[in-house]
Amino acid sequence: MSILFAYDDLTEFACSIFKKAGCSDRDARLASEVLLSADLRGIDSHGVARLSGYIRLWEGGRINTCPDIKVVHETMSTAVVDGDSGLGLVVAPFAMRVAIQKAAVAGTGWVSVRNSNHFGIAGKHAMMALEHDMIGISMTNASALVAPTFSVERMLGTNPIAVAIPAGSQPPFVADLATTTAANGKLEILQRKEENMPKGWAQDVNGKNSTDPNILKKGGALLPLGSDREHGSHKGYALGSVVDIFSAVLSGANYGPWVPPFPAYVPLPQNMPGKGLGHFFGAMRIDAFQPAAEFKKHMDHWITRFRSAKPAKGHDRVLIPGDPERESEPVRRAKGIPVVQAVVDDLAELAEKMGVKFPVECGREE
Amino acid sequence: MSILFAYDDLTEFACSIFKKAGCSDRDARLASEVLLSADLRGIDSHGVARLSGYIRLWEGGRINTCPDIKVVHETMSTAVVDGDSGLGLVVAPFAMRVAIQKAAVAGTGWVSVRNSNHFGIAGKHAMMALEHDMIGISMTNASALVAPTFSVERMLGTNPIAVAIPAGSQPPFVADLATTTAANGKLEILQRKEENMPKGWAQDVNGKNSTDPNILKKGGALLPLGSDREHGSHKGYALGSVVDIFSAVLSGANYGPWVPPFPAYVPLPQNMPGKGLGHFFGAMRIDAFQPAAEFKKHMDHWITRFRSAKPAKGHDRVLIPGDPERESEPVRRAKGIPVVQAVVDDLAELAEKMGVKFPVECGREE
Repeated sequence: MSILFAYDDLTEFACSIFKKAGCSDRDARLASEVLLSADLRGIDSHGVARLSGYIRLWEGGRINTCPDIKVVHETMSTAVVDGDSGLGLVVAPFAMRVAIQKAAVAGTGWVSVRNSNHFGIAGKHAMMALEHDMIGISMTNASALVAPTFSVERMLGTNPIAVAIPAGSQPPFVADLATTTAANGKLEILQRKEENMPKGWAQDVNGKNSTDPNILKKGGALLPLGSDREHGSHKGYALGSVVDIFSAVLSGANYGPWVPPFPAYVPLPQNMPGKGLGHFFGAMRIDAFQPAAEFKKHMDHWITRFRSAKPAKGHDRVLIPGDPERESEPVRRAKGIPVVQAVVDDLAELAEKMGVKFPVECGREE
Repeated sequence: MSILFAYDDLTEFACSIFKKAGCSDRDARLASEVLLSADLRGIDSHGVARLSGYIRLWEGGRINTCPDIKVVHETMSTAVVDGDSGLGLVVAPFAMRVAIQKAAVAGTGWVSVRNSNHFGIAGKHAMMALEHDMIGISMTNASALVAPTFSVERMLGTNPIAVAIPAGSQPPFVADLATTTAANGKLEILQRKEENMPKGWAQDVNGKNSTDPNILKKGGALLPLGSDREHGSHKGYALGSVVDIFSAVLSGANYGPWVPPFPAYVPLPQNMPGKGLGHFFGAMRIDAFQPAAEFKKHMDHWITRFRSAKPAKGHDRVLIPGDPERESEPVRRAKGIPVVQAVVDDLAELAEKMGVKFPVECGREE
């Protein structure tokens, strides 16, 4: 069972919390909108459930709520941004705006970011490009939970890639995917339900396939997309590595096993080679390739053709990347954001600690 | 058992064949080098085994051996190239050179290509960026063999992505991966051996998992990387779709189920929305982000750290993307390129038809 809260109430709550932590009005507003966009889009693991985690990082001195975010190097189509340890929720939109500005002039813009933190859902930032008739790309590294193929050591984060592509009369194409078989949030759901995981999501400390959703706490590791060598895990490992290198080696952030962890109680790795966590953003102006109207006509054709692909038995339709998240939005705006009891308790405690009023629920759902 | 041929002999043979088909000396040389790079790197499915396929496309009027390949639209950091139905083996290096030239000036260069054909291995083109201290990216769409998640219809090709990243004292990082669980070439190997496929590679005409390596000839489909929904096939489907859109919707090529097939005997699809097959290339100058020496020092650190990750039981080392292909090269240069009997017969027939001398074998191997 989940407790429902109005989207506006939860956003105001997060905004007040960020302001109490020292964020400017503008930054607090932006951070809470980016954070809650995950809840709206149905990605509960990356939304308001993480609010107290961000605050603990701030309390631990690992997040700077008054950062001087700036471009430290640039060419016509590229930039490196230093996030000054700011909230990733604020650093990422800054960097994506730089990418969009570069693209407006040079056709494309590519920005690698160092000294940042967890940035929420990747798709939200990529989608900033859409209203400019641009394709948006967004990726980030994250602390190590994933073992490379043939290894038992956690070397990579779930390192997501998002790509947002505008269409005409059809809704945009929005891919947003962790480069692992399953996101960590899926394991957390099974932990709460006390159910087993499917095989192929994670391995134990010896590299053996595990169905225990608590296996990461026992030295296990998530598996790259593909699960095992026979099913292409070396491809998921390669994709996660590319995200790590674009986000952190290009920017001067920490990479691989040195990426700072999200839980503030976990000590920082030793001998960190860079600054904070890294992201990578891209924007490509459609009309740097094709007239935008022509491109959108073909995107509509692409989308309607894929939607009409023959469904497999037991399925009534073929989805376009972004469909489930887009369909979640109006439902959750209308009915409220479902929050599980454990997260409600955590947020209520946070409210008390920070001296902020906790919102009143607007309903319940199974 | 395979028959061995010296790399130089096979390259000369392919070059002579391309010249007989009307290619200029320069194009024939380039095409044969690109084609044979697959054999050198151990990707037998994309090398000389495809030579007669290219020639059949030329005979069928689907490949123009004297193309006027040109940039038809450009901005500072982008271009669209029309391949004029040329060999992808020649069109792709042209387009990648344009991307590199753009990157030299604007920091990055991004080129979408229409009106092309099969371009060999994606990694070869991405690697052109390395000697310029650039990151290279290469992708292509291909004729539809892959069913989207929840579908039984073949809508996407194996749509590979390659990323080549320079290092310092370490060899470069080269990822080159089809966005499917298994490449079609792996099915062909099992067909020849008359062995079953692992589950998760392909489905039958009803969407049921199949272990029959001939299932594609019976209306089946390859599965996107991830194999099934529970193991992330929607992610492989999304990645393959991004490759399709970047390669073809951005350039004006054919996309999805309309991509022209490689076998010349397969009729072209009806109502094709674009021109030929599409590719997408990118080049990013390292020093558009970081001083190249600094970046390479960190890439060396990244690579040595990942190489030293603890191996799983039964494995003695953790690989870096590109290791197997790179290690294949000197072995095959020294010992020769192994070619299976069926391909030798096919090439000998081609030699006779085109009036070109077929090379003498240099050995045999199990």
